Amino acid sequence: MTVIEQMGAAAKIAARTLATAGEKKNDALKAIAKALTDNKDAIIRANSIDLENGKNNGLSASLLDRLMLDEKRIDGIAQGVLEVAALPDPIGDVISGGVRPNGLKITKVRVPLGVIGIIFEARPNVTADAAVLCLKSGNAVILRGGKEAINSNKCIADIMRDAVESAGLDRNSIQLITDTSRASSTELMALTDYLDVLIPRGGKGLIRAVVENAKVPVIETGAGNCHVYVNEKADIDMAADIIFNAKTSRPSVCNAIETILIDESIAEKALPAIKARLDEKNVELRGCEKTVSILGSSVVPADESDWETEYGDYILAVKVVSSFDEAVSHIAKYSSGHSECIITEDYKAAKRFTEVVDAAAVYVNASTRFTDGGMFGLGAEIGISTQKLHARGPMGLNELTSMKFIIEGEGQIRV
Amino acid sequence: MTVIEQMGAAAKIAARTLATAGEKKNDALKAIAKALTDNKDAIIRANSIDLENGKNNGLSASLLDRLMLDEKRIDGIAQGVLEVAALPDPIGDVISGGVRPNGLKITKVRVPLGVIGIIFEARPNVTADAAVLCLKSGNAVILRGGKEAINSNKCIADIMRDAVESAGLDRNSIQLITDTSRASSTELMALTDYLDVLIPRGGKGLIRAVVENAKVPVIETGAGNCHVYVNEKADIDMAADIIFNAKTSRPSVCNAIETILIDESIAEKALPAIKARLDEKNVELRGCEKTVSILGSSVVPADESDWETEYGDYILAVKVVSSFDEAVSHIAKYSSGHSECIITEDYKAAKRFTEVVDAAAVYVNASTRFTDGGMFGLGAEIGISTQKLHARGPMGLNELTSMKFIIEGEGQIRV
Repeated sequence: MTVIEQMGAAAKIAARTLATAGEKKNDALKAIAKALTDNKDAIIRANSIDLENGKNNGLSASLLDRLMLDEKRIDGIAQGVLEVAALPDPIGDVISGGVRPNGLKITKVRVPLGVIGIIFEARPNVTADAAVLCLKSGNAVILRGGKEAINSNKCIADIMRDAVESAGLDRNSIQLITDTSRASSTELMALTDYLDVLIPRGGKGLIRAVVENAKVPVIETGAGNCHVYVNEKADIDMAADIIFNAKTSRPSVCNAIETILIDESIAEKALPAIKARLDEKNVELRGCEKTVSILGSSVVPADESDWETEYGDYILAVKVVSSFDEAVSHIAKYSSGHSECIITEDYKAAKRFTEVVDAAAVYVNASTRFTDGGMFGLGAEIGISTQKLHARGPMGLNELTSMKFIIEGEGQIRV
Repeated sequence: MTVIEQMGAAAKIAARTLATAGEKKNDALKAIAKALTDNKDAIIRANSIDLENGKNNGLSASLLDRLMLDEKRIDGIAQGVLEVAALPDPIGDVISGGVRPNGLKITKVRVPLGVIGIIFEARPNVTADAAVLCLKSGNAVILRGGKEAINSNKCIADIMRDAVESAGLDRNSIQLITDTSRASSTELMALTDYLDVLIPRGGKGLIRAVVENAKVPVIETGAGNCHVYVNEKADIDMAADIIFNAKTSRPSVCNAIETILIDESIAEKALPAIKARLDEKNVELRGCEKTVSILGSSVVPADESDWETEYGDYILAVKVVSSFDEAVSHIAKYSSGHSECIITEDYKAAKRFTEVVDAAAVYVNASTRFTDGGMFGLGAEIGISTQKLHARGPMGLNELTSMKFIIEGEGQIRV
């Protein structure tokens, strides 16, 4: 057995205990929160090695910022762990059930998935965030973080493993792959005998690589080419407010918008109002011909690639459309299926938009920035699924579970 | 674009129509049922070519039987289509919902998956069965059947496509890949731009090949290494009846049992009674040492491979276990996660078994042969999932759907 296969086997054993661990899982979570707080210094020391290496290797300022852990951030992580502990335990929930005509009592109950693999990049907070969601939902987890954060990850994982053990659970409920070569990640993706699901968390490149190469089931997360469509019956002030919020409140996240579509009949009036708001944050506009003709030469002419791009920045593509159908077709063609919004006061347009647009979250008159487990009232999330299988949209604890049928009889046979 | 990419693109267009097709889907199903009945002769003619080729290529009698379509079987297929038409439409169902403190109304509704690929072997009835379940649940389907049934499949697919069109829907809602080379199947497995999920239906080899090679999400179906555990507090007559039914009522199917585990303390009494029932059907027993010592030399000594094998035949492995825990550990090690059963009159043992055994269906005192969509009251099924992601156990219409969040606001932005 390779090291990673051994980890898989150990995770499978841990998962059997976790499946029926009940309240001990919360004891472990509270122990983790305390241990993270108690060991802040050690974490910051380990993190400083990663930061030093990162600087030497020329990591960008924004990457270094994601990598950095200070007292406040560690407190935030520990606080997050306690919030997860406070959530209701999904395991054992009865989803549905009844008695069949032959007297068999059939109950569908929620159970853990088993062993979850998480592949992530340079954010050491994911080590704790992902591990505790898996633990709470009764799953063993194998973490494989980026090499940039390896010292921080090792330190945090060791602290969590000790804490889990101190609460009477198997320390292999949480494991970290310390080999950060490409080979370890490839092996994890093929660990079909042990992994029930693999969740990549990170940029487009990572997610694509996992989807292309994994032999275990994958949940795709995160890609967000999101649109706001300003319908001809839109309230223009509302449109400007929502677009401003959805673009500029945090441009780097997946629920920020990348393109707006505006009905021709309202474009001349709406575009200048929208631009005025976006100018407050110096948002660069990339527009179709009609947009340029209305707003003038401050708008960069857009090409095909602009409709496809998730900028993650203060850049917004703008397209004037001739009809509702053109807007919806544009969205069907370019959307990543994350979050899509219509601004309208027209009942039929609103209803139709929610029916025909195929995305995890379809909005009427609200900012796409709400697509988030906390905002949706689902508690902490492990990511936002943009695929349709198993989970779609913000993935909370329920999305980290499976189910089984329990059938209680008194000797029934099938005739 | 390759032929299969073109089919993918056409399916994606059809899927958009199907997503909101409502009652037209039932019109199409009824048209399909009628067309299959009206065109029995054509189907039987096409099928006779497949049968002739099959004989010339030396197909086994059981494969030829699966391949064969006669009037009665076609009537059965058409009847099945009407039963699917009569099921409630899952699309649009509100799964959950509520109003957030900021006034956003969030509703989680059921939507189609989109485009489903089905890879199957020599059973032409799957062409119709699978297609109509996909259609009813609002999904476009791309079928890729085995070369043995290609003439039958083409004929049935053409009949269905005409019928779908006659009902006012896109004929590309149902498509059949007529190239039965390995290359077409490999290409379908990698069609990530168009396929939302791929479901293999067939033997272990096919399913393994799809799981190993697919880049699109797969739902694994069908493998069934199922156990009955006869607890020390079992009713022996009930145990014998259930084991007899679960082994011999249809040994080739996945919900038949392959191994029984018997508590040591009851083995001397129970084993002869169980063997007496199984002798009625000449079931070959392969037993552990203790089984052989109790039942004598008519039992073939079992080796490790017997615990792993899905015989699909009148063969049953038998193991005497020293405790509940040994039984459960054996199941954890060898089960394919399909259906597992305990026979017991002991409350605690029954409760504990349903809690700790990890399988799609966990039984107390009933035959594993009930694991089936119809028997569970879920209506027709497209297969029995043995994976934990998305669907587990019998997959009915709901399991062919995804969901989306609809968020209705009045200008809310995220602060």
